[in-house]
Amino acid sequence: MTGSPLLYLQSGGPTAVLNASAQGAIEAARHLGHPLYAARDGLAGLIHDRLVDTSRVSESEIARLSRLPGGSFGVSRHMLPSFLEAPQEWLAARDVLERHGIHHLLVNGGNGSMGCAAKMSAFEQHTGYPLTVIGIPKTIDNDLMATDFSPGFPSAARFLATAMREVAVDINSMEVKRVFIMETMGRHTGWLAASTAAAAQRPGDAPHLILLPEVAFDPAEFLQRVSVCLQRNGHCCVTIAEGLKGPDGKPVAQSRYDKVYGNEQLGGAGAWLAAMVRHQLGITAHVSQVDCLQRGARHLASGVDVRMAYVAGYAAVEWALEGMHGVMTGFERSQTASPDWNIVPVNLADIGEKERMLPAEFIDAPNFGVTPAFLDYLQPLLVGEATSTFAADGLPDCRPIDWPTV
Amino acid sequence: MTGSPLLYLQSGGPTAVLNASAQGAIEAARHLGHPLYAARDGLAGLIHDRLVDTSRVSESEIARLSRLPGGSFGVSRHMLPSFLEAPQEWLAARDVLERHGIHHLLVNGGNGSMGCAAKMSAFEQHTGYPLTVIGIPKTIDNDLMATDFSPGFPSAARFLATAMREVAVDINSMEVKRVFIMETMGRHTGWLAASTAAAAQRPGDAPHLILLPEVAFDPAEFLQRVSVCLQRNGHCCVTIAEGLKGPDGKPVAQSRYDKVYGNEQLGGAGAWLAAMVRHQLGITAHVSQVDCLQRGARHLASGVDVRMAYVAGYAAVEWALEGMHGVMTGFERSQTASPDWNIVPVNLADIGEKERMLPAEFIDAPNFGVTPAFLDYLQPLLVGEATSTFAADGLPDCRPIDWPTV
Repeated sequence: MTGSPLLYLQSGGPTAVLNASAQGAIEAARHLGHPLYAARDGLAGLIHDRLVDTSRVSESEIARLSRLPGGSFGVSRHMLPSFLEAPQEWLAARDVLERHGIHHLLVNGGNGSMGCAAKMSAFEQHTGYPLTVIGIPKTIDNDLMATDFSPGFPSAARFLATAMREVAVDINSMEVKRVFIMETMGRHTGWLAASTAAAAQRPGDAPHLILLPEVAFDPAEFLQRVSVCLQRNGHCCVTIAEGLKGPDGKPVAQSRYDKVYGNEQLGGAGAWLAAMVRHQLGITAHVSQVDCLQRGARHLASGVDVRMAYVAGYAAVEWALEGMHGVMTGFERSQTASPDWNIVPVNLADIGEKERMLPAEFIDAPNFGVTPAFLDYLQPLLVGEATSTFAADGLPDCRPIDWPTV
Repeated sequence: MTGSPLLYLQSGGPTAVLNASAQGAIEAARHLGHPLYAARDGLAGLIHDRLVDTSRVSESEIARLSRLPGGSFGVSRHMLPSFLEAPQEWLAARDVLERHGIHHLLVNGGNGSMGCAAKMSAFEQHTGYPLTVIGIPKTIDNDLMATDFSPGFPSAARFLATAMREVAVDINSMEVKRVFIMETMGRHTGWLAASTAAAAQRPGDAPHLILLPEVAFDPAEFLQRVSVCLQRNGHCCVTIAEGLKGPDGKPVAQSRYDKVYGNEQLGGAGAWLAAMVRHQLGITAHVSQVDCLQRGARHLASGVDVRMAYVAGYAAVEWALEGMHGVMTGFERSQTASPDWNIVPVNLADIGEKERMLPAEFIDAPNFGVTPAFLDYLQPLLVGEATSTFAADGLPDCRPIDWPTV
């Protein structure tokens, strides 16, 4: 490979398809004759010159990459402060880039990372060193602005909706009345909790009640709905976002429950809700706190998600080498009978540090649910299988790839 | 079909492969020319004459059965008391059996259900009505005596080990030190918690510490091991069985945590452990309370489990029609290079109400782990894929089967 190297980094938290974007970027760089380096632990690896060279890894190993959960190069939540706050970090990064002759940076991340990438778009202005910056979207929270969706969200949503569907069948087959509470991630936005609505195959199917951070929680109304649901169905399946807020705007799981029942909260929002149901309705609730399972579940990844994450990584390399700068590879949904997505440039300045809430037209607050418009939005994202490669031991093969240091 | 009908019932809690046994029983009965009836909600359906006729359902619908989680006919934890305690229930059952001309009963369940089936083996003795009783094993807890394994356990184990492997890759890719705690089911036995050990592909891989109900919990030693693990690996993945016990023999999650930290426990054992880690080591722990997900996860069922559950149901019908009585279709592992299982009759009287603990030779207590012997036992059970049929919406098709009333 004769071209100058590009640098790719994974930033923020992992998703089930983050490495699919890495594979796309690596294969594009190979195709276009440039080595692709990656920073270990995101920005930390850039500043401290901990780079690996993906071009020295075999094609068959690279082909394994998109089947691995996590971030194969290591991810970090460390973000570059502004140049005025921390010029020494910028200059350290400049030294590393110059040492390796890197003039193209690809930042694969979410809100905070895109904010960082937006700042770094002014790299030449501050340091005198020419640097092209392209963002690649990624977050299970689906809260990036100006893109139809964020890679990682569809797979997490597919796992949660599948789990809700399977557990609801299980719970519904038991003779004794049950409440099942599934706690999803989502501190500020309800995209993941809402996605469990896709579990319903028929009217009346679970989930019966969805509690979103966008809607202030009303305990009395909620308990009333649980009672009605139990009478009607014999069971009641509830989804609660970890960031559910009370009328005071504070997350319920951080409020001191001892004001009511003499208890302090140790578990999350789901445990909090189960305690309320137990005390007020006298019914034991099963609680599943899904936690990292929804983020790591590569074995159930959405085919659309894996494919589009790959394409976003691939396009980012093409764009960088074409001289594009300061943009993210966003997704625009084509309005056809069978939805597909175009990759479109979105200004990093329009994305960073912002947060896309679940819009009002997707929320059916009076019914603790979502609207048909949300399901129309969600369902095309969940289609397609992209199963893991199973190792001889019967489980998905997750052996890490050994990346050689530059 | 000209033969007399057999009656099949699902008893206890569901598993991911309970319906595979139902499918085996139904297809055996069809093959042998007998209608197979099933009771709704287990024993309750027998006593109250709520029976369905599987012989009037199409072959293509029956073929869907083994892909559905839960108990398709409804399960119940209601067990028949002894004849002396509740003769009216026995006589009600007798009336129902006589009305439908049923002389063969198949009970698909766990410990309690096999105890009930053992009692019902004396049905003719107590009621004068001839009834052949065959048990079919089922429990995710794997605690049935006298069988190599219980259908349901391998699939739950495969889900848990997969989740641990995927999440460990995710957690390990993050720069900041993390503790991850996965709480599994298992109130009295550690089979499920121990099964997460299969997640490790290489020495040192997660899970790093496994807390079993069979081993009295030593907090000081545990915290010391967590610290060492964090120093060595940067992250530490812990499995905790919901029924972990302290030196006093009481489950930790029921003990009042307020004695130590002024808090009362609302969550389960995992939340309790996370609070301890936070207070004593100052490190935040992610907690996943897997709950019903491990029982419902048909999408990741073990191929061996689905196949053997089916075979156990099939054999039960054959045995019943051959006149066998008072036995369960147990599994005996053949000692070959590639393990397989024979179906062997086990006396119901040797199984019911007993509990198979994780044996001492499978536990490595000093290292908070399991022995190679346990992995040798477990791994053949996890092999083979038996994926769900995915519906057009991208998720596993879980539409219930509509069973016609007899």
